[in-house]
Amino acid sequence: MSASRLEAFSDGVFAIAATLLILDVRTGAGRLGSSLVHIWPSYAAYAVSFVTIGIIWVNHHTVFAQIERVDRLFLLTNVVFLMLVAFIPFPTGLIAAHVRGGDLGPADLAYGVTLTMTAVLFNALWFYAALGNRLLRPGADARVVSGISRSFLPGPFIYLTATLVSLASATASVALFAVIAFFYVIESSLFGRASGGSGEA
Amino acid sequence: MSASRLEAFSDGVFAIAATLLILDVRTGAGRLGSSLVHIWPSYAAYAVSFVTIGIIWVNHHTVFAQIERVDRLFLLTNVVFLMLVAFIPFPTGLIAAHVRGGDLGPADLAYGVTLTMTAVLFNALWFYAALGNRLLRPGADARVVSGISRSFLPGPFIYLTATLVSLASATASVALFAVIAFFYVIESSLFGRASGGSGEA
Amino acid sequence: MSASRLEAFSDGVFAIAATLLILDVRTGAGRLGSSLVHIWPSYAAYAVSFVTIGIIWVNHHTVFAQIERVDRLFLLTNVVFLMLVAFIPFPTGLIAAHVRGGDLGPADLAYGVTLTMTAVLFNALWFYAALGNRLLRPGADARVVSGISRSFLPGPFIYLTATLVSLASATASVALFAVIAFFYVIESSLFGRASGGSGEA
Amino acid sequence: MSASRLEAFSDGVFAIAATLLILDVRTGAGRLGSSLVHIWPSYAAYAVSFVTIGIIWVNHHTVFAQIERVDRLFLLTNVVFLMLVAFIPFPTGLIAAHVRGGDLGPADLAYGVTLTMTAVLFNALWFYAALGNRLLRPGADARVVSGISRSFLPGPFIYLTATLVSLASATASVALFAVIAFFYVIESSLFGRASGGSGEA
Repeated sequence: MSASRLEAFSDGVFAIAATLLILDVRTGAGRLGSSLVHIWPSYAAYAVSFVTIGIIWVNHHTVFAQIERVDRLFLLTNVVFLMLVAFIPFPTGLIAAHVRGGDLGPADLAYGVTLTMTAVLFNALWFYAALGNRLLRPGADARVVSGISRSFLPGPFIYLTATLVSLASATASVALFAVIAFFYVIESSLFGRASGGSGEA
Repeated sequence: MSASRLEAFSDGVFAIAATLLILDVRTGAGRLGSSLVHIWPSYAAYAVSFVTIGIIWVNHHTVFAQIERVDRLFLLTNVVFLMLVAFIPFPTGLIAAHVRGGDLGPADLAYGVTLTMTAVLFNALWFYAALGNRLLRPGADARVVSGISRSFLPGPFIYLTATLVSLASATASVALFAVIAFFYVIESSLFGRASGGSGEA
Repeated sequence: MSASRLEAFSDGVFAIAATLLILDVRTGAGRLGSSLVHIWPSYAAYAVSFVTIGIIWVNHHTVFAQIERVDRLFLLTNVVFLMLVAFIPFPTGLIAAHVRGGDLGPADLAYGVTLTMTAVLFNALWFYAALGNRLLRPGADARVVSGISRSFLPGPFIYLTATLVSLASATASVALFAVIAFFYVIESSLFGRASGGSGEA
Repeated sequence: MSASRLEAFSDGVFAIAATLLILDVRTGAGRLGSSLVHIWPSYAAYAVSFVTIGIIWVNHHTVFAQIERVDRLFLLTNVVFLMLVAFIPFPTGLIAAHVRGGDLGPADLAYGVTLTMTAVLFNALWFYAALGNRLLRPGADARVVSGISRSFLPGPFIYLTATLVSLASATASVALFAVIAFFYVIESSLFGRASGGSGEA
């Protein structure tokens, strides 16, 4: 299988997972006007998760820009990775539904575990391809490759930290996830810079 | 990342967002025959939003036909733009559900704000690429570029006006959104002519 | 816009509309075993509509195989055509839900009107491109083109007939839609032969 | 129609069917924390079906890597095959919902019948293309082709066996489906090795 076909399939899952997020934005009972204001956490959760999936998508392309071929283990790692990406709408909906009330903790924990595992799998994908130049294209620049590696590594730890914060304060943890997404939009440094060096994607 | 890959991903979000609109067409209680007639606002809302997304999709291609490369800020603007496009099914469902009863106002406001923001982001996308020829392809014709600019600019103002009309009359505002969609199908001038000059897309 | 990009976007809508059909297959209350048997009309409706969308998709490619370019009117006709294709899951769900009980008539009428309009728009799409060779590729074989025209023309009339039968007997009409789908799988002659002449697609 | 366009359309259905699986992961009533633990069968069902669709997708590409052209019967077989793939979310949801309680048997039977039929259609697709080199590309290696044939053939029998086990014990059958998915991730031998010979995909 060519890398470009795998990339196109992955893009499909990214696009669908992001677009399905809207199905969890729902108004409740009562007057529509106040309900639309009351569900603002749904909008925030939608935006944070949409942007997060967008960031992951950008970084997924960074990986593929360095890859020449794929082997079976890479392929299966990518399937498990996509399985986690497609899972994101579920805990996103939980957070939106439980920002108010006493059950934000478990919702936040589910969200954090999902994103941490996604970041772990993403790193597994990259380092499997990059170690020993296993799947990289011949002309891959060593400095670009190590720059990508450095920028991807912190992801799991950052998400794990935000997840652990939920044990102390679920609200703080949720806010942290929003800050992380916003920060990566600005710095694009969680999963790594898209081009691993220059300012362009 | 190549512009064509970004365009393909965007097309995926457009296609999914438009197709998901059907999930908000639902019959209510009572005899099916009269229910199918009674929910005609659902059909109208489905058609108006499907065509609106179609028009945005056409104009998105107009932008990409002039672009040679993308940078990180363009990429992130496009993600936020797609986030708004994928949001359209939510207020569309609200309008369909509340055309009757006293809550059309907030539904219409939500619809108008979503479309106005979408038009703003769309203009941001275009002008970021076009100002100073930042991302345009070398052979881009200056007259075509300024023709596109002129045709995209009115969009946010037209949608803002229709949104503000809802403060006076929600019904008039809803009708205006339908007229705008119909008008753009005819004139294709809200987000700009697809080819920025000729009669062909 | 190139014809191939329009075709790829259309393929996305076809794939999503067909796959969304599964959301209307649902078990009811009671023991699962008997419920799974009881909802057999859902399976039949799923299969008939999936195959129908598949046939339309095949014939959509037949059109595009003869086309060199697209203009704005063709583009907009295609958007309206896709709007109807994406609508198919709604009346499909109605038929599945109302095969038993007194409301099959309206459900069947909704299904028939949707398919008839889809077939009309499909013919509009083809004849707009084909008349006077407006959008055809230079090497288009006149005999192939007129063969396609002959094979597409009966579609609206066949669906209209099946729709009108529902006024006499909804059950007969539903059975007729299933027979039509089965027949087109066999003969591929409703919307036309995929290759307009040879036995290959 | 070119084989690559058919492949792209099929990829769309695979990606959507896999991503829609998340819609069947839902929490029940009661405290969120315990509910999230209680619905672990939903996670397992999600993972098993996502990976199963991923495996089928990989093997679908194995078929297309050997094919040069498609004819109408191949096309229609592929539509019916995709119809079965897109059906998988339904019995997956049934299993997740009925792991507890007395109705796992019918859910498991529905799941098994769906996968067995999918495997049968997949074999039909391959052998229709491969027998007498009907649709294979000129340079297809006879040993690779027969290697693929050998690796695909057991699929229907393995799934049929797991399905029949459900008549004795639904729990054992469900566990068997999970084991099969896990085994194919490891061995990639149910539907065949992706490359029909080497260790690479």
